[in-house]
Parts: sequence; C-alpha cells; structure tokens
Amino acid sequence: MVFTINYTTSENQTMKSDIEIAREIALKPIGKIAQHIGLPEDELMPYGKYKAKVPYQLINADDSKACLILVTAITPTKAGIGKTTTSVGLALGLEKLGKKTVVALREPSLGPCFGMKGGAAGGGYAQVLPMEDINLHFTGDFHAITSAHNMISALLDNYQFQHRNTDQQLKQILWKRVLDVNDRSLRQITTGLGGSGNGVVAESGFDITPASEIMAILCLANDLDDLRARLERIILGYTYDNAPFTVKDLGVSGAITVLLKDAIHPNLVQTTEHTASFIHGGPFANIAHGCNSVVATKISLTFGDYVITEAGFGADLGAEKFFNIKCRQAGLQPKATVIVVTSQALKLHGGVDKSDISKPHLEGLKTGLANLEKHIANVQGFGQSVVIGFNQYGFDTDEEMDYMRQWSEERGATFAINNGFIKGGEGATPLAQAVIDTIEKNPSKPLQLTYENEDSIETKIEKVATKIYGAKEVSLGKKAHTMLKRIKKFGLEHLPICIAKTQYSFSDDAKALGVPKDFVFSVEDMVINAGAGFIVVIAGNIMRMPGLPKAPQAQNIDLVNGDIVGLS
Amino acid sequence: MVFTINYTTSENQTMKSDIEIAREIALKPIGKIAQHIGLPEDELMPYGKYKAKVPYQLINADDSKACLILVTAITPTKAGIGKTTTSVGLALGLEKLGKKTVVALREPSLGPCFGMKGGAAGGGYAQVLPMEDINLHFTGDFHAITSAHNMISALLDNYQFQHRNTDQQLKQILWKRVLDVNDRSLRQITTGLGGSGNGVVAESGFDITPASEIMAILCLANDLDDLRARLERIILGYTYDNAPFTVKDLGVSGAITVLLKDAIHPNLVQTTEHTASFIHGGPFANIAHGCNSVVATKISLTFGDYVITEAGFGADLGAEKFFNIKCRQAGLQPKATVIVVTSQALKLHGGVDKSDISKPHLEGLKTGLANLEKHIANVQGFGQSVVIGFNQYGFDTDEEMDYMRQWSEERGATFAINNGFIKGGEGATPLAQAVIDTIEKNPSKPLQLTYENEDSIETKIEKVATKIYGAKEVSLGKKAHTMLKRIKKFGLEHLPICIAKTQYSFSDDAKALGVPKDFVFSVEDMVINAGAGFIVVIAGNIMRMPGLPKAPQAQNIDLVNGDIVGLS
Repeated sequence: MVFTINYTTSENQTMKSDIEIAREIALKPIGKIAQHIGLPEDELMPYGKYKAKVPYQLINADDSKACLILVTAITPTKAGIGKTTTSVGLALGLEKLGKKTVVALREPSLGPCFGMKGGAAGGGYAQVLPMEDINLHFTGDFHAITSAHNMISALLDNYQFQHRNTDQQLKQILWKRVLDVNDRSLRQITTGLGGSGNGVVAESGFDITPASEIMAILCLANDLDDLRARLERIILGYTYDNAPFTVKDLGVSGAITVLLKDAIHPNLVQTTEHTASFIHGGPFANIAHGCNSVVATKISLTFGDYVITEAGFGADLGAEKFFNIKCRQAGLQPKATVIVVTSQALKLHGGVDKSDISKPHLEGLKTGLANLEKHIANVQGFGQSVVIGFNQYGFDTDEEMDYMRQWSEERGATFAINNGFIKGGEGATPLAQAVIDTIEKNPSKPLQLTYENEDSIETKIEKVATKIYGAKEVSLGKKAHTMLKRIKKFGLEHLPICIAKTQYSFSDDAKALGVPKDFVFSVEDMVINAGAGFIVVIAGNIMRMPGLPKAPQAQNIDLVNGDIVGLS
Repeated sequence: MVFTINYTTSENQTMKSDIEIAREIALKPIGKIAQHIGLPEDELMPYGKYKAKVPYQLINADDSKACLILVTAITPTKAGIGKTTTSVGLALGLEKLGKKTVVALREPSLGPCFGMKGGAAGGGYAQVLPMEDINLHFTGDFHAITSAHNMISALLDNYQFQHRNTDQQLKQILWKRVLDVNDRSLRQITTGLGGSGNGVVAESGFDITPASEIMAILCLANDLDDLRARLERIILGYTYDNAPFTVKDLGVSGAITVLLKDAIHPNLVQTTEHTASFIHGGPFANIAHGCNSVVATKISLTFGDYVITEAGFGADLGAEKFFNIKCRQAGLQPKATVIVVTSQALKLHGGVDKSDISKPHLEGLKTGLANLEKHIANVQGFGQSVVIGFNQYGFDTDEEMDYMRQWSEERGATFAINNGFIKGGEGATPLAQAVIDTIEKNPSKPLQLTYENEDSIETKIEKVATKIYGAKEVSLGKKAHTMLKRIKKFGLEHLPICIAKTQYSFSDDAKALGVPKDFVFSVEDMVINAGAGFIVVIAGNIMRMPGLPKAPQAQNIDLVNGDIVGLS
C-alpha cells in the first residue's frame, strides 16, 4: 500500500509496517474460516494451511438475500486513497456489528509488487492474509493464465509456421504474449529470428498478465462451460479474407480449458480479524473491467449476508465497468456503493500543492469536493445509494470533517469516518453502521445501466463519455472508424464497451484533475475482446506492460530469518 | 509415455490408456501416504487432497541406512524405453515384497506435454498420481522458477536501461528468459524495440523452463541458504572490464529467494499402488544434470528404506551426471543401479530396420547388446552393482530373454524381467527381488567418480569422453578455448563438468547408434553455471527451446464431462 510509508496515526505514533502487523496475527486454519460462514470444510481444496480453493459449483446465489456492497473511489491521485484497506476494514466493521460478512477482492500482480508497490492486500490492521502468499504465487491462478495465454501464442505461431506459404496462413496476428512481471524491454519485440527453423519472423510483444484477455474471461465466466465457450471466441488474428481466426479455429479450446480447470475456482483466505475473504482474478481496470471474478462475488453472496467487493481506479472507470459490464453480465444488484476519499486526494484535486496536503486546508478541500460531487452524481445515476468512506489521517481537523459531513448529506449521501487502517474493525464500525443504515432505510434502486445492449457502439461511447465523464462530445479517429465497421460486420455491436483511458482524470487527459469540462473525448482505436465479451475502446496511450523504476522494490524484498521483508 | 500407444500385452490385449487407468484408481488422502512412511501428517503443506509439499527441514538422511537405487537406461532410441515406468514399477514391486519404499522423480514440463509427449508420469499400472495434476501446474514449482528467472531478466534489462550511456552498463548479457512452453518463435528475439522508453535494444531469446539455471540450482540446493548463495553466484553478463556481473551485483538475491521459498520443498504424491513418491524439479539432462532435486532424494532417504531415483536419457548422460555432479555435491552413495532396456531399442542399436523391431530378431538383438555392454561397463566403473531391468513386450521370445539373462550374468549383472507396466507391482517383483538380492549379496562399492575436483577442466572432459563415451580424443574449438581461459581466470576450475551432447549416441553424432569407436569428441563452447555449480561443456547443437509438431498434442487434450483426455 502506498500510504503506509511514514504514516502517522491520529495519536502521532508511527505505525508498524503492514508485514509486521500481518506477522503478529495468529491465523486460523482455513477450515475454521469456512465453517464460520457455513461452508462445509470437506469441500475445500487446501493450498497450505491458510488458503483453499472452493469449488465454484457451490454457488447458489440466484435467490440470495445477501447485500452486495461496492467499494469505489474518487479519481486517484499520487497520494493514494486506501480503497482495498477500506473494503477490508468495512468487512471487519460489519463483522464487529454481528453481520456475517465476506469480502471479495482481486489478486495482486507480481510485477508491480516487485516494481513499485510492494504488495496489494489491504494495509495496516485491515489486510487479507497470508499477505506474503497472496502477493507472491498465491494459488497459481496468474501462472495458469500466463501458461494458457502463452500456450495459445506458441500454438498460433506454430500454425503460421506449419502453414507458411499457403493460403491458410493468417494475414494479421493480434494475439501477443504475457508475463506477470514489469519488463519494458518486452513491450515490443521481434520473434522468429535466427533462420527458418525458428518459425516465421513477426512483430510481437508481451503484456503483463492482468492485461491478458484470458484474465478478463476468467473473471467474467460463470462456470467451466462458459469459460470454454469464451475461450473459443477469442479472436487471435485475421485471415487474408479478413475473417476472424479464433481459438476454436486453432482447435485447442479444450487444452486451454484444461490449463484453467483449477484457476476458475475462487480462493478463500482470511482478514486480519479472520473474516472470510475470496481473492480471485485481477484484470486491468483500463483495458479490462478491473473487478474480481464473478464466481468469487457469487460464492461470497452464497455464504455471506453482507458482501463487500471493489472495482479498480476511480468510480468513472471501475464502478462504471462494474455496473455496465460485470453486473450486466452476471445479473448482480448491489445494495449500496461506498466512495472512498481522503483529504489529501481532495486537496490535490482542489489545486493544493503536494507539499501542503498533509496540513489542514479547508478551502482547497472544498474546491476538490467537486471531483467527489461528480462521482456521487454518477453513482446515484446508476440508482445506487451512496456512502462516503472518509479515511481519516492525523492531520484532518474536525472543522474539515464536519463540513464534509454536511456537504455529503446535502447531496443525499451518508458520510462516515473510517479508521480501519489503524484500528481494524473497531475503527470501521461507524462506516459499517452507515452502510447497514443506508441499506435498511434507503436501499439502492434496481440498477440503471448507462446504455442498452441494443445501442450502437457509438451511442454507448457517447453515453458513457457525456453522462459519466462529462465530455462535451466524442471524436472517433480513423482506426476507431475502421474497427467500428469490423465490429458491425462481425455482428458484435451488442457487446458492452470497456473504455481504456487514464485513471487520473474524468477526461482522456491525465493532467486534468478536479472536474474537467467542455472537453472532447477522443477515441483512437478499438479492440474486440470477443471472449471476454466487450469492446475495448481506447482513448490515449494505455500501458499494457509497466516498466521498473530506478530502484525497484525487489531490491528491498528479502528473506530474513525465515521472514519476508519488503512486502507491504 | 511414448510406448503406450497401440501397446499390446503379452496376452495380445489392447491396454487401457494411462489416463483411463489413472482414473480407475481410488487415491488415498495424502495424509495416509505420509503416515505409511512415518511422516507426521501435520507437517504436510497440502495442495488439494492428493498432493502436499513436505518441509525439507525434515531431512535427516546423513546417517540413513536406506538403500538408494538409481534407474538409468541404454542409449535412447525412437522406440522409447520406459525408464520412469520402470522406476515406479520397481517401487511397487519392492513394496509388494514388504519393503518401505519411496520413489523420487522429476516433474514433467508443460511444453512437451502439450507438444509431443502428452505427459510424463510413468505409464500403465506403474504411474504416479494424480497424473493430470503432475502433468499440468502441479504445485507451481516450474511457474515459480519461470517467475524468478524472468524477474531477474526484467531487473537486468532495467539495470541496463537505467545505466545506459554510463560505464556501469554491461558489455554483454548472457541471461535470457524462460517459458514452460514449446515455442520455436521465441528462440531468438530482439527486445527493447519501439523507442527509447522501451529499454535498450538487445538480442535475447527464451529457453524452456527446465533449461533455466535456476532449475538446476533448485535441484542441487541443500536448503534455502544454499539456494540463496547459489542464486547470488549466477553470472548474468560481463562488464566492460570483463568482470562477471552476478545476481548479487544486481542486488536482488533476497527477492529471488523469496520467489522460490515454497518451490524448494519437495512434493509428495502416490503411485498407482499408493507408494509414497516425491516428484520435485526437472532440469534438462543435456545442459543440466537431469535428476530430481537433492532435497527430494534426501527426504526419500529419511523416510524410506528403499529409495528409487532416476536420471535423464541414457547412462552416458544421466547416470554419469547423477554420479559426478549430484552424488558428488550431495554426498550420496547408491547401493545399486538398474539399467532399463527393451528388445526394440536393442534391435535398433543392432541395425534392425524400424519396421522389424516388433518381431523376434535374436541376431539383431545380439548385435545391439554391444550398446548395453558399454553402459554396464561404465556403470560398474563407478563401483556400482548392476541390475538389467528388461521391459517385456508380447513379441519377446523365451530364447531372446534366456540369451540376455546368460549374457548379463557373464558381465556380472543380474537380468530381471519387468512387467510393471501391464501388471503393476505384481509384475515388477522379479525386478524388485533382483535388486534386493544384489544389494544384500553384492552391494556397490563406494562411488568411484570419473574425475577429481582438482583435475583441470580439459582433463575432466577428456576423462569423461574417453572413459564413458569411448572417444579416441577430445578437440576443443576456439570458443571453448576462450571460455577455458575465463574459467581459470575466475578460479572456477574446481567445478564439475556437465556435458551437453546428443542423447542418441555415445558420441557427439546423433546417428552413430550402437557403440561408436575411434571418434574425436568435439567441444565447441562452454557455459559457466556458477550458481548451479558446474561448467556446461557444449558438444553439438543443443536444443534449449523445443518446437511444436504439425499436429500438436494440445489438439487432443480436452475436458470431457469433467475428465481430462489426451494426457498419457
């Protein structure tokens, strides 16, 4: 977590690091965690003593009375917001208030963990554990996806090699390769060099594993049959007749399904206070939909009364896709949405200099609230009841918080202070109570999606860009127009859209903080993810393979007397 | 397994496929398997119900009275020999005779499994189970090695990028990347294309994961500290001063150790008759030493009275490296060596046409025995007592078998017929009894290694080439001479050698079957594997990344009603 470094509590004491806190917790055997939510222990597929896969076949969520709660955030800034920490903290708080709670989250990627971030499993006293395992290989899901993806790549290149100089050879290959590592050198490569025995020379490249279409597929599949059907539909390239060439055409959908037969089952772990937690899947939140798997959410709804889940980046990206893609495909109806906010992030949106955000600054904060206001209106536009989860820092003043409380109420949202990071469930009960009250007294309406399946792709883009982002209009580039024709030709206009844009602004300009207005939203290209079941709409340069910084986190990660250090 | 296709038993009935047999076995919970060998169940780290990692810290093999038995083979041919099937069968046979037995084997690689072979976990009624898991992701060891290897690659390329245009940049990079897939297009690639933000343009390539030096390291490390020390010594490239640049210099040995902290523990599974089996590590048998991990062998010796292990390819490659590298480093003393042989392979070595090898052919077989004779002499040269494990087929005649029995005895080796493939342990008791008798009545002498640590590298190569391969002399190419100087300069002459040559001949010419004579053994290059702790001596073109055939096995692998088909 970003904001654990030099974090000081409201009592001005320096906190222990995430991994120090994690190590102090005496974990319960995973069978006990299962028992607590009424999940039969003998159904578990254990991975060590504290992790287990749970067969997705146990899902029975269709007539579930469980309350699904989405945690999202304002537009992220460099300061970090603590969304995962809030999701976990809220679960702890609900459990403290006697509610049977399950939290469903994404799996972290190894790349950023060894690059910049050093882990992503919540923070402070609101973590999912064992955090070392979750941040490393966990139960092997990412590795299975990497294998499946690259197996297709190898089989596809072999197809090209075996059919070289015939009319069966493909004109264009779209499918690249993936690795779960930050490696800028692999973004663009030439393969097949060294002579004719080494295949056909081709331009290729590696994305990071969370950017694999297979990751998105695993996270949207309802079951193994659905997974297989989606894999079959992946478009790998085009023939000389401009017909799509799919995994089905390659004849290997069975083999690829076999590689994912374990990865499809959700992973059960526990929080710092032994709340059940399903951590499963981790698709990018720009070129994919950025939520944990449908099966993890549904199995949580099967066994929990309150289920917390989260969506990547700010609500304009994460929540929009959660509603318009995941809820649409999986038939989910969230009962409330929590928008996470910190005073630091609000001040940055309000134009306060980075050096001043750790001091009181009511005026800057007031200006920054415009960003939150737009997110509240957007989320309410989906029919959702909104709770503001304010992550408190030691420097926040009563005056600031009182102001935000009244301001929120004026906009029909409940304001709640969260201290889950420093106090665990005890610190999150005000937020938990606010969520319970909201669901009981002012529940969300049935989801009002931004667009209909029947809308044209242009209309879908226009609706999201104008309604959610606040754009004046949409402009489509040449490549995007070509792709539009192709999408129509292939009869894929009914698919939802997944807009890939910067997470740092409502617009397609990362530097436009706050609430940009009157901007033209420029779409450059589109990608058909026929397997995942959405059209990726690309606005701006989207990073699919991060690089490493000058001093990578890997230099700090170590094993000291059997304990891991450097993960947080 | 290669020879299961269209295999007919001695009763001329078509056998069930490996996976059909595997599915019929009611597996015992892995805790029961542990109990049977006196391994405390609560020490297990379960991976599902039928696989577990066992902490290597339980090793207590130094004063073990257990009998270690190596299974090796004559020079392999296209016909397949059934070495793993014999290893497993022998364990079943010993268990039938009341001996507490453990079998230690290598993990299969996903690449060949989806390419040509469709699996490698024994065959028929002599398999290790669950074969589907063992052949797929298993407990994630290969994925952890792939991650660790490519993490180093990314960090190394980042080092080059961050130090570009400074004198800290390296002159030469030796470290490539790995994936556990057969992908010829990745053998030779150019990375860092697409502009200066994508790193430094460089020639690179991918090997298959079993060819990673980290795989060899994992298989030779005694414990986590040794693993880390070996990782630190890996030479990644050279500076402009021709000094080696290591993982330690990169400052990430801790992080890479963390990625391997689970992979180092051996994996416990069971055979078709519930014998305990440790399957751990799978280094190539040409550029590496081709045996399962030292920790798997040692934990087997801790808990078993009889321990079967195996070495890759023929005895000239596998057994030689097992003795000269693995036993030398780990202090192992095998009590007997089984050389596996089939009449088909002998006939091929004897010049019989491939179309005639499934018919009796005593004369061809007699000629082919020369190959076996050289292997017997070699293995006896190590001080080993030899048992010939003859895998019987339906077309083998009594006359042929009687001849081989007498022939073997004349050479001081016991001849035993093995029908483990079609009858399991019951079919392997003659072989098991022969092994027991040999160990009791005619035990091996202390290992007589082919060369001393103090010998020069040239002398080591000459001793192996002349004594084991039967070469007349050794010729060193220009590159090899350059490397020799470097090895001396770095003070690494004390390391053992690991010769990478074709597995299909005693010589460096794959077409020279039988027993080639008077040949010059040509060494082209050397590679310093300072982490693994050996010098790879390269004789001929060595494939480090296989390709896929016209009709890859992946096209036959499928999931049908929840059952995997196409693995064998």
